[in-house]
Amino acid sequence: LENYPSKHLETAVNELSKLPGIGRKTALRLAIHLLKQDEADVDALGRSLVQLKKAIRFCKTCHNISDNELCEICQNPKRDRSIVCVVENINDVMAIEKTSQYRGLYHVLGGVISPMDGIGPTDVNITSLVQRVTPEKLTEIILALPATIEGDTTSYYIHKRLKGTDVLITALARGINVGDELEYTDEITLGRSITNRIPYNHPSGK
Amino acid sequence: LENYPSKHLETAVNELSKLPGIGRKTALRLAIHLLKQDEADVDALGRSLVQLKKAIRFCKTCHNISDNELCEICQNPKRDRSIVCVVENINDVMAIEKTSQYRGLYHVLGGVISPMDGIGPTDVNITSLVQRVTPEKLTEIILALPATIEGDTTSYYIHKRLKGTDVLITALARGINVGDELEYTDEITLGRSITNRIPYNHPSGK
Repeated sequence: LENYPSKHLETAVNELSKLPGIGRKTALRLAIHLLKQDEADVDALGRSLVQLKKAIRFCKTCHNISDNELCEICQNPKRDRSIVCVVENINDVMAIEKTSQYRGLYHVLGGVISPMDGIGPTDVNITSLVQRVTPEKLTEIILALPATIEGDTTSYYIHKRLKGTDVLITALARGINVGDELEYTDEITLGRSITNRIPYNHPSGK
Repeated sequence: LENYPSKHLETAVNELSKLPGIGRKTALRLAIHLLKQDEADVDALGRSLVQLKKAIRFCKTCHNISDNELCEICQNPKRDRSIVCVVENINDVMAIEKTSQYRGLYHVLGGVISPMDGIGPTDVNITSLVQRVTPEKLTEIILALPATIEGDTTSYYIHKRLKGTDVLITALARGINVGDELEYTDEITLGRSITNRIPYNHPSGK
């Protein structure tokens, strides 16, 4: 066990080290860095995190984050409302928006199916996606999920759930390296993989 | 410029990316992670940081952090009050304490002299160290600074400032790899380098 010279330091290190990718040594370095900053700056950080969780909302249609009931993209009359791009997370929306290659809507799953992590199909926003197809008269759903086993599993599951509808299912062109996350893909590759999207076919042919 | 779907998200990312070693992509990932946590957990993190800065104090003798006017080490009657170990930062105190090889007191400089970063001798707690020698009847000062150019410069400067006092100046045995920070040194090496500490002699022989 570590022996902290102050319980306030210990509490801060405990809390910081709960963040993904931040171990106890990094947490201690961050805490010591904060101690050297002005109180107003540390306050601003603390308040921004509390406010983030308290004030942010999720778009009731696409689950993107929003400051309102509907996100800016769902509210934008210039977007093509017949296409929905399905992504794992909010940062994927931001990554695709940055390419300026896509003018349709989104659907944020909030995760991908991962039996190893106990994440099943009902833990991600798939049912609400299926329920959008008919009322919104969708003509195309683009599966823009990570090129990982979990991403592929999720794509396949969505494809199965959409059988019987006549929506076209496409997937990102696989210029993306297998195993890579969307947000780490360079903008040109990501933009091109949307432009060159292809009909979705599961390898098994089912 | 990034286009954030929420100004609360943007503020949180701005604040998080001010932390050392955290870029905007990592900040966004951390923010999205926090959005998925319970509000109570995010509150606990935010409050712990504000509280850290607000409630923590610095020991008036050694500048270690403390919940009181004097830190636990300075208050401990079992410590050898004639030896002071000079370190750069609070985490170095914790690293040395963990070795259980040292029973003296500390002096936390709060940094090392680094002209490149605009940190001069008066920006770190060196004068208060010099002022401890006579009233506290110190017999030994151990220089436990990083094995970097800045650490060496600081050791040499302290050595010069202490000329004329008859306190013995020692330095950590250089089992520590040049360029390494103390906190990343394994406990055995760090413990041994305190046990085998050697008289301080600047390479120039001055």
